[in-house]
Amino acid sequence: MIFKHKIKVRYVETDQMGIVHHSNYPIFFEAARVGWLENFGLAYHQLENDGLMMPIYDLKVKYHAPAYFGDELIIEVALVDLGKIKIKFDYRILNQHDQLITSGSTILVFMDATSRKPVRCPEELYLKMKTGL
Amino acid sequence: MIFKHKIKVRYVETDQMGIVHHSNYPIFFEAARVGWLENFGLAYHQLENDGLMMPIYDLKVKYHAPAYFGDELIIEVALVDLGKIKIKFDYRILNQHDQLITSGSTILVFMDATSRKPVRCPEELYLKMKTGL
Amino acid sequence: MIFKHKIKVRYVETDQMGIVHHSNYPIFFEAARVGWLENFGLAYHQLENDGLMMPIYDLKVKYHAPAYFGDELIIEVALVDLGKIKIKFDYRILNQHDQLITSGSTILVFMDATSRKPVRCPEELYLKMKTGL
Amino acid sequence: MIFKHKIKVRYVETDQMGIVHHSNYPIFFEAARVGWLENFGLAYHQLENDGLMMPIYDLKVKYHAPAYFGDELIIEVALVDLGKIKIKFDYRILNQHDQLITSGSTILVFMDATSRKPVRCPEELYLKMKTGL
Repeated sequence: MIFKHKIKVRYVETDQMGIVHHSNYPIFFEAARVGWLENFGLAYHQLENDGLMMPIYDLKVKYHAPAYFGDELIIEVALVDLGKIKIKFDYRILNQHDQLITSGSTILVFMDATSRKPVRCPEELYLKMKTGL
Repeated sequence: MIFKHKIKVRYVETDQMGIVHHSNYPIFFEAARVGWLENFGLAYHQLENDGLMMPIYDLKVKYHAPAYFGDELIIEVALVDLGKIKIKFDYRILNQHDQLITSGSTILVFMDATSRKPVRCPEELYLKMKTGL
Repeated sequence: MIFKHKIKVRYVETDQMGIVHHSNYPIFFEAARVGWLENFGLAYHQLENDGLMMPIYDLKVKYHAPAYFGDELIIEVALVDLGKIKIKFDYRILNQHDQLITSGSTILVFMDATSRKPVRCPEELYLKMKTGL
Repeated sequence: MIFKHKIKVRYVETDQMGIVHHSNYPIFFEAARVGWLENFGLAYHQLENDGLMMPIYDLKVKYHAPAYFGDELIIEVALVDLGKIKIKFDYRILNQHDQLITSGSTILVFMDATSRKPVRCPEELYLKMKTGL
């Protein structure tokens, strides 16, 4: 199941090459991930309030074509691996001409907000996300 | 007493005009402010650990000339007004050719980290900073 | 005439105080300004392609209340002063509870993209914007 | 040959987890890469002026431990693969306690600044960098 999140490129996100700076794509991935969670009735800020954090352990990005100021990007995100202690998402970003801009993946771990130690994914969350696979 | 903080412009800080994007200067001001505090033997992260935060209430920036990737900027910071509940800094940013790039000011308030309410500046900090005027 | 632009706070925009870092608001102002122009059938990237740039000369921000991750902010932007060589916008940012978060203003100048010298506002653009006052 | 670049974590680089947001590490890698080039008497902004760009094609980051505001990070960068059309760097970021924070790699391609097409690495640059392997 692929969730699609829309983003409009901001001026500040460009660099002097006249294209979106490569450091913005992990931010776009993150925004799409938050949208993906909301789509399941899960607010990430609520998860944090409830004591669960999901820091990133692994990030991979491939840059296929540049994006430009004003572009309307679609970030496709899909849960591809759901474990009890970590979780993997794949991403593809397309522009308004349906051209592939970037692709990538992130692995996140479940962490207790207080102890800052890895924890197992809470059962309720696990089951909700399982339906997203 | 003026404290000088050096910054080298990063690629990501440029935009498609080929100059430093205007949103970076408040960040440069902040870095200089942190350096100013350290110069008094005060680590801002230590102040926060001790329960004091200093959020910004007012920001003013004037953009005189552009800065470019690779520029070595000097951020001059001076404490110009020290109150019991707020504090004002003035800034001037110069490039390696001694050209004025930006000038500005920030007003910060003292806030209790737990209650998130305004507080009076702790006496010890107040006295230390007073020597900086 | 007030134009309203919606933004959802991203995780990356928070800082360790748990609130939106103050350097993001000039970026939100900019996004709203771009939306304001589009509302007149003017794409800022098209203006740049046509040889006109509008760098910022003056920025003022007042921080009234914090914004948080996940907040849905409304950025109100209004053209308050339209000159032949510079232009001033006022802003107010409200959260989903209609609470005032920040207010501010920016003065922009018209600049030739090639010579990088100030120029008078092109007549067609001037007239279009005049209808926005 | 490993080049070491020092960075001090800025407040803005933290997020509400109280740690450096993961999107900053590609920026730290970039700053180290620019330092690496300078170490060979090569200014990246000069390469761009001469018509050569080096956009990123592939980015990989592993996050081993969090970094905090005020940390003094060492970014180690090493050229590990020098081709005629692309080039690969490896990175390790350590904090002031010599703890491994992140590791990663980037593959960059050589691109003509005008045509925006891939080009072969200019001979002079190639030979200079070869001495860095």
